[in-house]
Order: sequence, then structure tokens, then C-alpha cells
Amino acid sequence: MGTQFDQLLGKVNEIHDLEKVTWLLSWDREVNMPAAAAEIRSKQMGTVSKMVHELSTSDAMGELIEKATEELEGAGADPKGMEQSLVRHLARDFNEKKRFPIDFIKRQSEASGIAVQKWKLARENDDFSQFVDCLETTIELCQEKAEHLGYEDEKYDALLSQFERGLKTADVRRVFNAIKAETVPLLEAINQNSAAVDDSLLHQDFPVEIQKQVAPHFAEAVGYNFAQGAEVGTAAHPFASSFSRYDARITTRWYPDFLSTSLFGTMHESGHAMYEQGTGEELERTPLARGTSMGIHESQSRMMENLVGRSRDFWKAHYHVLQDAFPSQLGQSTAEDFYRAINKVSSSFIRVEADELTYNLHIMLRFELEQAMVNGEVTAAQVPEAWNAKMKSLLGIVPPSDNLGCLQDMHWTGTSFGYFPTYALGNFYSVQLLEAALVQNQSIEADLAQGKTGELKKWLGENIHQHGKKFDPPELVTMATGRPLDHEPFVRYAKQKFGELYNL
Amino acid sequence: MGTQFDQLLGKVNEIHDLEKVTWLLSWDREVNMPAAAAEIRSKQMGTVSKMVHELSTSDAMGELIEKATEELEGAGADPKGMEQSLVRHLARDFNEKKRFPIDFIKRQSEASGIAVQKWKLARENDDFSQFVDCLETTIELCQEKAEHLGYEDEKYDALLSQFERGLKTADVRRVFNAIKAETVPLLEAINQNSAAVDDSLLHQDFPVEIQKQVAPHFAEAVGYNFAQGAEVGTAAHPFASSFSRYDARITTRWYPDFLSTSLFGTMHESGHAMYEQGTGEELERTPLARGTSMGIHESQSRMMENLVGRSRDFWKAHYHVLQDAFPSQLGQSTAEDFYRAINKVSSSFIRVEADELTYNLHIMLRFELEQAMVNGEVTAAQVPEAWNAKMKSLLGIVPPSDNLGCLQDMHWTGTSFGYFPTYALGNFYSVQLLEAALVQNQSIEADLAQGKTGELKKWLGENIHQHGKKFDPPELVTMATGRPLDHEPFVRYAKQKFGELYNL
Repeated sequence: MGTQFDQLLGKVNEIHDLEKVTWLLSWDREVNMPAAAAEIRSKQMGTVSKMVHELSTSDAMGELIEKATEELEGAGADPKGMEQSLVRHLARDFNEKKRFPIDFIKRQSEASGIAVQKWKLARENDDFSQFVDCLETTIELCQEKAEHLGYEDEKYDALLSQFERGLKTADVRRVFNAIKAETVPLLEAINQNSAAVDDSLLHQDFPVEIQKQVAPHFAEAVGYNFAQGAEVGTAAHPFASSFSRYDARITTRWYPDFLSTSLFGTMHESGHAMYEQGTGEELERTPLARGTSMGIHESQSRMMENLVGRSRDFWKAHYHVLQDAFPSQLGQSTAEDFYRAINKVSSSFIRVEADELTYNLHIMLRFELEQAMVNGEVTAAQVPEAWNAKMKSLLGIVPPSDNLGCLQDMHWTGTSFGYFPTYALGNFYSVQLLEAALVQNQSIEADLAQGKTGELKKWLGENIHQHGKKFDPPELVTMATGRPLDHEPFVRYAKQKFGELYNL
Repeated sequence: MGTQFDQLLGKVNEIHDLEKVTWLLSWDREVNMPAAAAEIRSKQMGTVSKMVHELSTSDAMGELIEKATEELEGAGADPKGMEQSLVRHLARDFNEKKRFPIDFIKRQSEASGIAVQKWKLARENDDFSQFVDCLETTIELCQEKAEHLGYEDEKYDALLSQFERGLKTADVRRVFNAIKAETVPLLEAINQNSAAVDDSLLHQDFPVEIQKQVAPHFAEAVGYNFAQGAEVGTAAHPFASSFSRYDARITTRWYPDFLSTSLFGTMHESGHAMYEQGTGEELERTPLARGTSMGIHESQSRMMENLVGRSRDFWKAHYHVLQDAFPSQLGQSTAEDFYRAINKVSSSFIRVEADELTYNLHIMLRFELEQAMVNGEVTAAQVPEAWNAKMKSLLGIVPPSDNLGCLQDMHWTGTSFGYFPTYALGNFYSVQLLEAALVQNQSIEADLAQGKTGELKKWLGENIHQHGKKFDPPELVTMATGRPLDHEPFVRYAKQKFGELYNL
């Protein structure tokens, strides 16, 4: 490649190194760092982040991107190649960052710092009124952010594009509405017949030390490669993080009286980490060396957690591992008992504890509310009432307090409106991808039937992982499945799976 | 403080943040990182180090240091205060870095990269001839380095000052010779009477999992504060590292058939980490927030490992913890048996496995050889012979192979001549400091007699730790003990302790 591109790449490599360093600082903060070091660590992270920002928004960088773009176009470089993808991404990112006035960045960061504190206070006192002003500020900042970013159809498009580039609010709305129309009556029927599935098996004493011993088996079973990672870490809010494709790590949390959290958390984060482990070598040390969007990333974690990890075949093959580890708790049960227990569905208040089916309804509620807030149809003060009304219509229950309602998530302390929908998009993408994979590669089905994921991982590696951030989600999903996001695979899957479980 | 100093401090804070980030990257590499990530990690570390170097040697930084120095002098700032210490340190460091031509830095780094590989090869084949050319290059680079740094009396002074500022080779030589004169005959007498001490107690099966459970007790027993650190990590080459005074971490290694390594390694690294945990808050985010020299740092680790951790009183108080952990291995022995076993002395080939007494002789050998090499009296090719002759005269034994001789340490793959002596200096400083502490604070003795270190830690905190790098070693030791480095305390200590153990 030509000299302008090489120069650009050298700079980009260094900026990316610094960015990955902030990821490690953050991983370490959650997994190892003593609380006493929090203040200094945030200063250290601030220093590195400031350098990343300065380097990536400098005039010199802007010029270099332009020149490299011209050079590549002149040379007729492959538009699907790494070079073209990279300059496209850099130009977009550069222009986007330049759109925000420094004053806005500062106000946004200050408001978020205060909002986190106020949100914690409001939670402690279960008192929404202590948070309402901050939420109003968040709404105003999100509106302003949308204006800075610009949009064609609706404000929320601008916000959504920050997390799921190329997808319009209208696309998401159509898919969500189609799935909502099927899920709400399905959930009503399930709730009528809730006794059909018993999950008491999962609520027993499960010594944490033994949970820690079995977790690696399940990480590997879904395809996580420990040689490109580290042992399963412990974190209050589990996450996966990667510092290169050769070092993608997972964390989980452990409850001594409930098995699902650590188990499915491990498989979920393994799915995320596998995406990072599988990104193409040629993307390393560039911003293309990561998953393309939050939604596609979530499709990988959800696939391992739910489509593989909550499948009947998987437990037929692996239940003995849990039974050996917990003989007195699980020795008398069957893989089928366990399969049913881990798939129990019921309406509940807290999103992060929700099952595979109701989880999407929690997201739809937030998606609808965020739009209403940004469009000025719901004020901060009206949020609790609007929340409860939507809970009633979607899940049939009303939270008895705001702590169990609109105060439960930390997300609205910052301007990350548009992030929530990616959680549900991940669920829908995951089924669409798996359906396509099963059609394209006949050996995946036989493999999964034996609780193995090697063939599936191969397909994901070729169709999703290796591409990193080279393609936007709609393009990537179309390349992999032949069409953009589609609601039908998930609807088929949910009706079949839960219909059978609940004899509907 | 004035505006120039504040500006300088702002820059220094950021540079120090980046430097601490490289420490964390390094800690993580040893403790968590998968081998597959080594190459990318070294690039990430290289990027941050390059920024540290660029920022701290820029012309703007040079000017800022000058202006802040003038400003402080004009304002009559306290020469022992943080501000004056900081600009003094920065000016010295800046000028020193400027003395090295870029070409030298590059040659040095390339030579070291090659030498590490060749050294590993030579070790694999136990063949010094594969390393001899690299060692010759190291010698030449060390000679050149000394010229760049400058010196008054002898070349080795320049090299030594990189690790132990303010100390002259002649000072070290005088102290080393005085101690050698006492140690060599003492060792001969001990070797004659070696059966007096039996250490078979330590060579039994000690399950690693249980070693891991007891290690934190001994870290805390010597004074390590887990609230300003993390759990004891595992590393092939144990070390301590700190990312702020609030986050100083220790590592050790575990042998399933030998107890001393993990146990005394933990106490050793605890001593290092306590130094960092104890540095003054006002030094945080500056290069003064660390131990003043390698030698003083080693005095802190050796004090906890040897003066506390290998004392009779300590084990009277703590042996029951080991006995409870390893009842079948240690249940039938007494604290006195254990005390004797952990203090066995005998001539052996490998420095890192040497006991408290012979360790210093291993260092003296290297100190003398390094001077001879730098002064052109011994060529690389002559090193094995010179090494073996010195082993014979100092320890009375001759290594049967270079792997057990001059190939054992990695240090000579780089230009760190002058580093080795600090290991022994640490031993001598530690006894000098403890003697002074016992005189100055009567309650330390009573405390230690009960296996407690609270009073000693308080004294160290006030006299050593809090000052960080504000004062050079000779100044610091004189402030704490009333005189500079002195050989007599160690001689008294060694004769008393080992004379009693070996009935001499």
C-alpha cells in the first residue's frame, strides 16, 4: 500500500494501542483494583483518554485521512478490503467527533458525573424525585446530541446510529412491533400455565468454589479459547473485554444459592469474547479490530447463552458435568428437568433478571420511552407513570416502587439513549444468524445435537467474527443471511420453544 | 505555589499517569496475560513508553522545568519540600536523558533484544560461546553509557548512580570488602559445621492450594495492607508493582515440595509494596511517588523477609498458623525447629536460591566482575574463568557448568551494570535501619518480640516510606540513622545470628 495510507496506519496503530490500554485499565479496575485506588485510576484513565481524543481529532489526522482516502481511490482499492473499510471508518468517526462542540462534551461529562451520584442517592431512598432533574438534563442533552449528529427522519435515528450504525428507528420499530404482537399473547398464555415449568432445581446451595471449578468447562464448551484469554474473572457487573484478538477475557458473578447467574453469565461473556478472538489478524491494532456494533456483539453472546446454552441438546451432552460437581443438589434430576428449569418464563420487574422471552419486552418499553422523551412527548417527571403503564400493557404487572421500575438501570445517567434497543436486536439477530448457518452448513446441526459448537464457531468466524468492524450491521447481516434484520426467525423460534415447554 | 510550578505539575502528573500505566501493563503481562498476546502487548507498551519519552524530553518540558526552578528559588521554597525535590529530580532526569544520543538508545535497545534471545539459547545448550559476542557488546555499551553520563573518579560510578544515586563505587567497595572479610571465614566455619542445622522440614509435600490460603496471613503479619493492593498473584519471576500508593500489588511463586519460596517471597514482596503504600500522599502522580533507589527498596523487602520473617520471635508467634495449615507435615515440629531450618547456610551456585549470608558473596562477585569488565581488565571471553575463580575464593566451590555459573542471570543482556550491588546494599541498609529504629523507638522491640510489626512499620513510614524519592539514599539513610551506609550493623547481626545457630 502507498505511503499516505502507511503513515495513517502508523498513527492509527498507536491510537488504538492507547485505546486498548484504557480497556485494560477498566478491566483491571473491575476485577483486581482495590476501592481505595478509584480516584487515581480515574485520573490515569482520563489522561490516556485525553490523549486518544487529541490524537484522533487533530488537524494532522484529518488531513492524513483525506490524503489516504484519495490515494486508495486513485489506486482503485477494493471497497470491501481492509484499507478502504478503515479509511471509511476513520473519516466517519473523525467527522462525527468534530461535530460536537467542546462545550457540549464538557457539559455532557459533568452532567453524567452528577447524575450517577444522584441516581445512586435516589436508589438508596427509592425516591425518583431526587433524580428527576438529572433525567431532564439527560433528555435535553440527548436532544442536543441528536442535533449535532444530524438526522433525516427522526431525532432518535441519530442516537441509535451511535450504537447500531445503518439501522433506522423505523426499522427497529417495525421489527419490535412485529415481535411484540406475538410475544404479548404468548406470555399471557404462559403466565396462565406457569406451573408447567418448575425451576426450584436452580435455587439450592451451590458452593461458589465449585461453581468456579466448573465455569471453565462451559466457557470452552461454547467455544471460548483460554489460550487467547485469561481465567474467568469475578466482577460485580459481568462483562467481557479484549486488549487484542489474542487476549479477550470474560468475567461473571457467583451466587451461592442460584446456579444460573454464573453459568449463563459465563456462556454469555464467552460469546462476546469469541467475537473478539475471531477478528481478522490484519485488523489488529486498528479500530476495525472489534465487533461491528452493540447489537451484533449481543447476537454472539446471546447465541451462546440462549440458543446453545439453553438448548435441550447441549444439556443432554453436558449435564453430567454439573451433576458430578453438585451430586447432592442435581444427582437425582435429569437433563430434561434442568432444560425445563433454565427456560422458565415469567413476568418480572427487573430487566437483568428477565428470561429469554420477557427480556425483549423490557427493552421495547425503554425503546418506546426513550423516543417519547427525545421527542418531547414525555417529560422526566412523567417517566414513572409512563413506565408503569407500559409495564402493565407489555408484561401485565406494575412495579410497586420506582426502584423496581424506572430507577433500576443506570443507563439514563448519560446520553446513551439508543443503546437499550441493541440488547433486543442481539436476540433477534442471533436467531436469524443461526437459522442461516444451519441451512448453509449441514454439519452444524449434527454437531449441536452432540453439544458441540466447533462447526457453528467456524461458520460464525467466517461470516461474522473475522470481519470485525469492516462492515455496518445491515451489510454484514445481509452478507451472512441474504437479508437484513428480520423478525420472523425469532418469532418461529420463540413460539416453537416455549409453546412446547408450556404445552400451548 | 506559583503558576509555572503548577503548569509543570500538570504535565508531570500526566506523564506519571502514563508511566504507571506501563507498570500495570507489565504487571498484567506477568500475572494474567496469555502467551499468545506477548507481541501485541509489547507494541502497546512501546507506544505508551514512547509517549512518556517524548513528553518528558520535549523542549517545552525543559523550559518549564527551568522556569519553575527559578520561580521556586525566587520564592525561597523549602529545599526539603516536595516542590524543590520535584524540580531537582526532574532537572536531573531531563538532563540525563538528553545526554544519550538517539542513536545510542536505539543501538542499546536492539542489542538487548538480540542478547536476550542469545542468552536463552546459550542457557538451553549450556554453551557460553553462543552468548560471548553479546556480552562483549554489552560491555562496550556500558563503557559508552558511562561516558555519556560522565563521572569524576571511575567509570563504574556513572553506572551505579543510575540505580543508587549519590553512592560512589569506592563507598560500596569499602563496605563490601569489610563485610567480605568477616563473611568468608564465618562461612568456612559454618561449612565445617553444616550438620548443626537441618532443613529437611521445609522439603516435604506442601499442597499449593494450602500455601495460597496461608500466604495472605504472612503478608499481613509483616504489614502489607490488602486494602491498598490485591490478592497475592502468581508470577514465574515474583515481583511487586504499584500503580499508586493505593494500589501496590505482590506476587510470588509456589513449589509443591518446598515451603520457603512462596512464604519468604510473599514477605519479601510485601516489604517492597509497603514502601510504595507508605509514600506521602502529596507525592502522588509525580515521579517522587516511589522508593528512592533500588538499594533502599531492597532494604525494605529484606527487612520483612529476613530481619522479621527469619527471626525466632516471629515464628514463636506465627508458627501455629503453618502448623494448622500443614498438620501432618509440621505438626510434630517446634517453632525453634522451623527457625533453624529456614536459616540454614551453605555455599551453593545459584544466587536467587542463596541464603541470607552467602547471598552477599554472590553479589560481591558480580560487583567486582562488572568493574573489571567496564575497566577493560576482563573481556567477555574471560568471564567464565574469572567467575569460577571468584566463586572458589568467595564461596569455596566451583560451578561444574556455566549454566550454574556466569550464565545464570539475565541481567547482562542489557546495560544494567551497577544494578547487582543494590541487592546486597539492601541487606546492609536493612540492618542499619533496624538498629537505629530499635534505639529510637523502644516499643518496637517489645512489638517484634510478639511477632508484631506495627511499631516498626510506623517508624519506617515516618523515616523512609513517606519521603518517597524526595531524598537520595545517602541523605535519607543519614536522616534516619545519623550516618551514611555502615558495614558494622550487618557484621554484628550476622556473627551473632549465625554464630549462635552454628555453635561458633
